[in-house]
Order: sequence, then structure tokens, then C-alpha cells
Amino acid sequence: MIIIGEKINSTRKPIHRAVQARDRDTIVAEATKQAEAGAKYLDVNCGTLPADEEPEILQWMVQIVQEAAGLPLCIDSPNPAALAAGLAVHKGEPIINSISGEAGRFKKVLALAKQYNARLIALCLDDSGIPSDKDKAISVGEKLIADIVAGGVAADRVYLDPLVKTLATDPNAVHDSLAIISNLGAIFPELHFVSGLSNVSYGLPERRHLNRAYVVMSIAAGLDAVIMDPLDKTMNALILASEALMGKDRFCMNYIGAHNDGRLKVS
Amino acid sequence: MIIIGEKINSTRKPIHRAVQARDRDTIVAEATKQAEAGAKYLDVNCGTLPADEEPEILQWMVQIVQEAAGLPLCIDSPNPAALAAGLAVHKGEPIINSISGEAGRFKKVLALAKQYNARLIALCLDDSGIPSDKDKAISVGEKLIADIVAGGVAADRVYLDPLVKTLATDPNAVHDSLAIISNLGAIFPELHFVSGLSNVSYGLPERRHLNRAYVVMSIAAGLDAVIMDPLDKTMNALILASEALMGKDRFCMNYIGAHNDGRLKVS
Repeated sequence: MIIIGEKINSTRKPIHRAVQARDRDTIVAEATKQAEAGAKYLDVNCGTLPADEEPEILQWMVQIVQEAAGLPLCIDSPNPAALAAGLAVHKGEPIINSISGEAGRFKKVLALAKQYNARLIALCLDDSGIPSDKDKAISVGEKLIADIVAGGVAADRVYLDPLVKTLATDPNAVHDSLAIISNLGAIFPELHFVSGLSNVSYGLPERRHLNRAYVVMSIAAGLDAVIMDPLDKTMNALILASEALMGKDRFCMNYIGAHNDGRLKVS
Repeated sequence: MIIIGEKINSTRKPIHRAVQARDRDTIVAEATKQAEAGAKYLDVNCGTLPADEEPEILQWMVQIVQEAAGLPLCIDSPNPAALAAGLAVHKGEPIINSISGEAGRFKKVLALAKQYNARLIALCLDDSGIPSDKDKAISVGEKLIADIVAGGVAADRVYLDPLVKTLATDPNAVHDSLAIISNLGAIFPELHFVSGLSNVSYGLPERRHLNRAYVVMSIAAGLDAVIMDPLDKTMNALILASEALMGKDRFCMNYIGAHNDGRLKVS
């Protein structure tokens, strides 16, 4: 499982304020904590700042976050110009978050992925928006991945995000998301799957239980990356357990190793 | 989700000692705690006591547990004579744990189920033992359920136990169990599924994380009953979350109700 740290995102108020004030220390602290907790990538997003400042700010963030964390980043913007500015200063092999079937960004983001040898998070949507049902979503996803592969990025470099809907307003939200993962996984055996956690439980109380159960079910369906708080020890323990249960952890060595390191010591 | 309390089982040393000494208070305390925690049924098992005493002891247990808990029981023995003794004094509608495809008990247990209007837990095995792979298990299960239905007990009164193997010795254990549930659920849409938790994580450390992830994945596949410790609040919260995610909790009312009662207040 690839854990992408979600915390350096300006939709979080402390990050918004830190980015606005170019407060390096707050960003560095968030980067360091997530790296120490075991994140493989850190997401960086400053989408709440004025659009014309985004390229310069994202570039600033990429530099200080990589310097602090020593990790590759998941450069997060719908704006190809901002992605380009961030990618230009990134060291190592980044993830671009995100491409989609929207004509306005598909070609530009694909070109950036090839130029910078980046992996891609692919959102399961096109110019008609988020598909209204799972059959439409599967065909939108199938076309998107086929187009990315035809454009020169292999399926094993792509993480499809099924864009899980909000359970409180759509009782099929999780059924649909699991069906998108298992169907597209059957069509493209090399394809990876990623999800964030904030949508599914939006508007419901005690969201952590819903988020945890959602991740476990998604791992059983084929999820192999997640954008989350890497400091959530209970979620980490459940992810390790889920991978062991799915036979993805040979002889349960990761699970037993986490036990030996004291990382499973959560109630 | 039907939660069957597992704690009155003589494989637990305090229960073995209490049953041996006919210590009513210990049994009553275990029954009361589980009922207060929300169990729908309580399992009663005294299989570690001498076989010739089992009918009399099981009958004693059924009486005092029902008196204390005011719940229907899951009368647990491979021995039809012990089941018959327990059923004779049971009030209300019990579950018999268990029937299987073994010729030696199939007819006798089926007759008891009809005589006492009992639901059945059906173990997915026959005279050849536990099937060695999932395809064999699915055909053993299919024959067993077809035979039970032909014998006069409807599929919606039956809880099939896929008999999950031990992950530490079989990396396919959970894949197979999930496949048994989803395949037999497609063949018999009215059939229920039940599982215990002790097998899957046997021999591994920090077993609770593995047990929790296993239950969540199984609920996504179709599990609707579990034999567990009803006092495990974290597991209860994950089960409520899983049912909400699967669209089995209309408007998430059970989940929100549990929140209002403070039952989701676990980290």
C-alpha cells in the first residue's frame, strides 16, 4: 500500500495561513511529521490561494517540502501551469495529481507526465463531470486509461481514483466505488487504484469508523494507494491487516514487522 | 447484522471451571454482560466437558442463560443428543450450531430444526472434512444448502459458515472465504452467512486488527451474522459503519442512533 500524506493542503486552515504568509516552519513541520510516520509520498496543494499565484506558490512548496521530508511528492492541482512550475523543481519521480478525461487538461497533463517521468492520478470523470452511475463511470474510466496508455504512459504508472461519492446522500456510493475498482482492475490488470477519505463520510458523525471500513473494503476490491493522514495509527494497523488478509504480505512479514516495531499497539 | 455472543464457551478456562463446578453466578454474569452489550443471541457450548455429561450440562446452561439474559440462544454442539437436550428446555426460537454435510449428523440435526422451529448454522464441510480449495467448498456448500432446503428448512433460516482457514498457514484463507460467501449468495439469494473470528488470525500477533479487517471485508461480500464478543466496542462501531457503507442501514439511521447513544465513542 502506498500512503500519500494529505496534510499539506491549503483547504486546511493552518496550511492556508502558512502558505499565505510564506511561513516555512509550519510547512516543514507538517512535512517532517508525515515522513517520520511512514508516508511514501506527500501531497502538496495550494488550491485555495488566488489562481494567478498558484504556480509560484506550488513551486515554493515543492522545494521546501522535499528539502524537509526527502520524499517524492504528489503535486496536486487541476491547473497544468501550476503543475509545470512544481514539476520543474521536483527531484526524483513525482506523482501528478491529477489527469482526467476533461479535454482541457488531458493533453497538457499527459505531456507533463512524459516530460518529467511522472506517475499519474487519473480522476474517473470527463467533460460531462462525475458519471452519474457506476456503468457510466466504468466506461469513462476505461476510455481514460486507454487514452493515457495510447498517449504513452503505461497502465502500471497510473492510479485511478474512482471518486467515491458521499454516503449520506447516495446509499450506492460505496457499492459503486468498489464496482469501479474491481471492473477496471479486471480490464487493466496493471492499473493501480487510489482514493481519498474525506468524501465518503462527509456529513455523518464519528467519520473515522466509516473511513476505516471504506479503506478495508476497498483494499479487498483492489485499492493499493490512499491519500490520508499517515499519523493515523489505527488506520495504518487496519491497512497492514487488510493487506495481510488479501495475501499481499508474504508470510505476513510486514504485519509481524509492524508488531515488532510497536506500530500495531493501538486499541 | 446479527451478533451472537461467543463468551459462554467452555473452551474459555473460566467457563470450563464454572461449568464443571455448576457455578451459576459466573455463567449468569457472562450472559447478562453480553445481553446488555446488545447481542441478539448467545452461543452456549460445553464441548470440553466429558461427552456423556454434555446433554445434561448443556440443558442446565440453556436454562440459566435464558433466565439471566432473556435472549434466544445459539445451542452449540456437534452432538445431536446434546442439542436435543438443550432444545427441549429452550424458550422462543433458537439457532442450532451446527449442521453440516456429514451424514452422521445431517438427518438428526435437520429433524431437530424442524421439531423446534430452529434456525441453522450450516458448516461448509462434509464427510471428506473441510474442503481443500474454494471451488470444492462452493460445491460442498451448494449441495448442503440444497439438501437442507429439500429437507424442509428454507434458505432464509440458514446461516452458512464458510469456515475461514488460518491466514498464517494459508495465504488464500480470506480470498477463499469471501469467494464462498459471494458465490453461494448469488446461488441462494435468501441464504445468510455467519463467521467466527478466532481462526483467521490464529498464530499472528495483535489479532484484533486482522479480525476487524476480516469482518469488514466479509460484510462487503455478504456476511450478516457474526459470532463474537459483543463487548468489543471498536468491532461494533466498524460493523455499524460497514453496514452503512453497504447501503444496509437506511439513511444511516442505525449508525447515527449509535452515535447518539455514545456507542461510537471509541478511538
